[in-house]
Amino acid sequence: MLDTTLRDGAQSEGVSFSVEDKRRVARELDSLGVDIIEGGNPAANPKDAAFFADPPALSRATLAAFGATRRADSSAEDDAGLAALLRAKTDMTVLFGKASLFQAREILRVEPERNLLMIEESVRYLARHGRTVHFDAEHYFDGYEQDAAYARECVKAALRGGAAAVILCDTNGGAMPWRSAAITRAAVKEWDVPIGIHCHNDAGVAVANTLGAVEAGASIAHGTFLGVGERCGNADLCGVLPALSAKMGLSTNCDARLPSLTRTARLIADVMNLEVPARTPYVGASAFAHKGGMHADGVGKDRRSFEHIDPALVGNARRLLISDQAGRAALLTRLAGVAPDLTRDDPRLTEIARRMKLSEQAGYAYEGAEGSFRLMALRLLGRAEPHFQALDFRVFCEQPWARGGAQAYIKIAVNGREEITAAEGDGPVNALDLALRKALRVFYPELDAVRLVDFKVRVIDSGGTGSTVRVSIESTDGASAWGTVGVSRNIMEACWRALTDSIEYKLSGLTGEGR
Amino acid sequence: MLDTTLRDGAQSEGVSFSVEDKRRVARELDSLGVDIIEGGNPAANPKDAAFFADPPALSRATLAAFGATRRADSSAEDDAGLAALLRAKTDMTVLFGKASLFQAREILRVEPERNLLMIEESVRYLARHGRTVHFDAEHYFDGYEQDAAYARECVKAALRGGAAAVILCDTNGGAMPWRSAAITRAAVKEWDVPIGIHCHNDAGVAVANTLGAVEAGASIAHGTFLGVGERCGNADLCGVLPALSAKMGLSTNCDARLPSLTRTARLIADVMNLEVPARTPYVGASAFAHKGGMHADGVGKDRRSFEHIDPALVGNARRLLISDQAGRAALLTRLAGVAPDLTRDDPRLTEIARRMKLSEQAGYAYEGAEGSFRLMALRLLGRAEPHFQALDFRVFCEQPWARGGAQAYIKIAVNGREEITAAEGDGPVNALDLALRKALRVFYPELDAVRLVDFKVRVIDSGGTGSTVRVSIESTDGASAWGTVGVSRNIMEACWRALTDSIEYKLSGLTGEGR
Repeated sequence: MLDTTLRDGAQSEGVSFSVEDKRRVARELDSLGVDIIEGGNPAANPKDAAFFADPPALSRATLAAFGATRRADSSAEDDAGLAALLRAKTDMTVLFGKASLFQAREILRVEPERNLLMIEESVRYLARHGRTVHFDAEHYFDGYEQDAAYARECVKAALRGGAAAVILCDTNGGAMPWRSAAITRAAVKEWDVPIGIHCHNDAGVAVANTLGAVEAGASIAHGTFLGVGERCGNADLCGVLPALSAKMGLSTNCDARLPSLTRTARLIADVMNLEVPARTPYVGASAFAHKGGMHADGVGKDRRSFEHIDPALVGNARRLLISDQAGRAALLTRLAGVAPDLTRDDPRLTEIARRMKLSEQAGYAYEGAEGSFRLMALRLLGRAEPHFQALDFRVFCEQPWARGGAQAYIKIAVNGREEITAAEGDGPVNALDLALRKALRVFYPELDAVRLVDFKVRVIDSGGTGSTVRVSIESTDGASAWGTVGVSRNIMEACWRALTDSIEYKLSGLTGEGR
Repeated sequence: MLDTTLRDGAQSEGVSFSVEDKRRVARELDSLGVDIIEGGNPAANPKDAAFFADPPALSRATLAAFGATRRADSSAEDDAGLAALLRAKTDMTVLFGKASLFQAREILRVEPERNLLMIEESVRYLARHGRTVHFDAEHYFDGYEQDAAYARECVKAALRGGAAAVILCDTNGGAMPWRSAAITRAAVKEWDVPIGIHCHNDAGVAVANTLGAVEAGASIAHGTFLGVGERCGNADLCGVLPALSAKMGLSTNCDARLPSLTRTARLIADVMNLEVPARTPYVGASAFAHKGGMHADGVGKDRRSFEHIDPALVGNARRLLISDQAGRAALLTRLAGVAPDLTRDDPRLTEIARRMKLSEQAGYAYEGAEGSFRLMALRLLGRAEPHFQALDFRVFCEQPWARGGAQAYIKIAVNGREEITAAEGDGPVNALDLALRKALRVFYPELDAVRLVDFKVRVIDSGGTGSTVRVSIESTDGASAWGTVGVSRNIMEACWRALTDSIEYKLSGLTGEGR
């Protein structure tokens, strides 16, 4: 298992790591049990060179630097790229070279024989300097289809140089699963070093190609977290890892920590400033979410009815979605924590379903906003007395870079006692948020622990800056997290609704009830 | 080719279609050349029943209704679900039944023999009423692994009833490609009706399983646009369609319209209120985006170096990304339209690269915000004289539901002439936007054509409502679209920057230069 989130993943559009980010990700991968962490390309990127100059302490993972074979016009000894690889403080180097006649001739623009020499000499040079060299046979599958003999010559050159393993790369991501499996099987049969597999997802089959290669005998799987990488990305290790263990019965060094896979994926996504897409296999928020009424009913009878694995295996959890397709059973399940007395035939349940539909038509989305959903239901049941009233507020913003940010004045009442205050903030939403909290703190000091960890604004119709927007907020008090939502054509009102729901949810003592 | 975006796709978390949405999607699918459009489940969903009661006029696609075999305790004649299927005005019905001993016994809770009768009688009833029946053999692959004989009995029951085709379903999405291919191959060999394949993506291999089944002889591929669907979704037709044609040399009725695939995917995503994820194979914005300097260099020499197909085949386009990893060559290419005189050795290019890095460190993301990137470069080159100056503005918002929205006052100057005005809007951003446009319209009537089609707010650090936010705006003037970006801890300032960049970009006459 080699993770290249820090190297190939950094080639992903929108992904960029600081040196400190790289350290954090490397430590997470190490603790998950990943065998090899490809940390970057020290010759191409000063940030990566800095990372390798002071590598993080890892408990068991091997750190590898990545780089190219020598240039056509230099010797291995004089090559700046190889020198950078030797300066990197790693025991292992992943060296890539072109394993394709077309790529050597047309892109490198070298004679085929010279390319073989470049591979052999570069591997030998690094091996002589004590590095364990894995040879990334770039474009191997395409090269093999075009001229199998030459692709194999490239691998032989690396083996003559002393490569400890050969990784077959589908660099352009266009190979079909049955072809990559057959080509891998032939390689495993021909050479007695470990064969690895490195797949890109341009045809949407990177995970399948990776698993198929392992099924065909490959023993080193490359991938990235969430499948980030150049163009369409790499094989997603979050899809590869659980399949090796749960589908293929193979053991990996990550097995013991598989139940932390979902947590690790979210953490690494956070470092990359990405969200885990909801439909991501195994680790996405929707991966075990059941929307159809029959599906919700089925998993209630037996998990295996509509779940291919137990979500706990990968640290994920089942969710029964609330939507116009969900049955009353799902609705009851979601409300069990806050209104256990509701029954399937309760007319109030009908009223909750009706109100939910109306809100959804207006743009609300309760999936992911359990806080607002439960408050809506409790309000209908007459069980959500508000903890405060906003009597008035005003927000002022001036040309922000000229005289500071925005100011908000607010007047609230709690049990007949009024509190009036003001705050200055970075922008109107922040100023209002701060003023509201400042006023509430007088009555509810426990709100100091609540902070907003994410907010999203989604335009849900097309009226420019006057569009209806949905503001989704995720809040935490350290112990638990909850989502709330507000919808309005006024972004301030949408924020206000999501914000006050978040606070009411906390003050109502509902935060222990899960999301 | 059967598209089930409107049925299985509607099971996706966050996806919901109105009847009018369904009509729009159906017309798009028809025009793309999809053979069968599965429009919904009229028995389970009143919206779907309404859709089938007044189906859209299609030029060549067959519209199919989807539903379950009869209930265990009713006859086919008395079954409400089958009656709803007959009320649907379609020639074709896709009927699903459990093809698994476990599912029949433990989830349906019927005797295995009764399940076979339910399948046979339901198919026969619909066929007698003139419907072409495709039998969705639900859970076939899991059922086959557990008890192959019973899974095959279920298919035989459907064939006895008169099913015109049998679709093997990996309902839980957990099958491995080599197993689903082998099981499909056996089915193709055993039965002489067309065999179809319906895969879910819970193991991340739905596209591979679909293509592998076609390779094994299946002739009807099911899927959805963008792979939406229950849990992790279905096989993405945007991955299946181009592979059938470009990788496997098969012809489909969509071949002629394949160059509109990217456009169709974006349009259907828009109806679903989703974005096409950037890394989506074939149709994503990053699918042919090259970030690594060597990759950008390679595709400059020969497309095939790092592109598995010609992006034009699917109506997508190559993009050379601007990022701290991109080389000067990529930078030059991106600026060629607006500053053709820049050369690779120009010191001003170094300055642009330096400034870009600083902005990116501050949270700017120029990928997707070409408007702001080009303006930044032109400003450094001294070629972007501002078309207006904002001398002052103030924005006021009060408790929005009490007295209306927000008000903005603004004073601008154009060539020494001042204009002072005010506007009321839905929230502070909208009020400021309207006031600014109102003031600018006096000088630049052409701005009336510009409208904002999307704005996104992304929290890029974790400071609650006072976080640094990145506001990304996409604008259009009807003829072209452009992206701009603003970053600040004050959401008003971030919006202001993105908004004024959008306007300056239009006023500078740059909108014809592509994104």
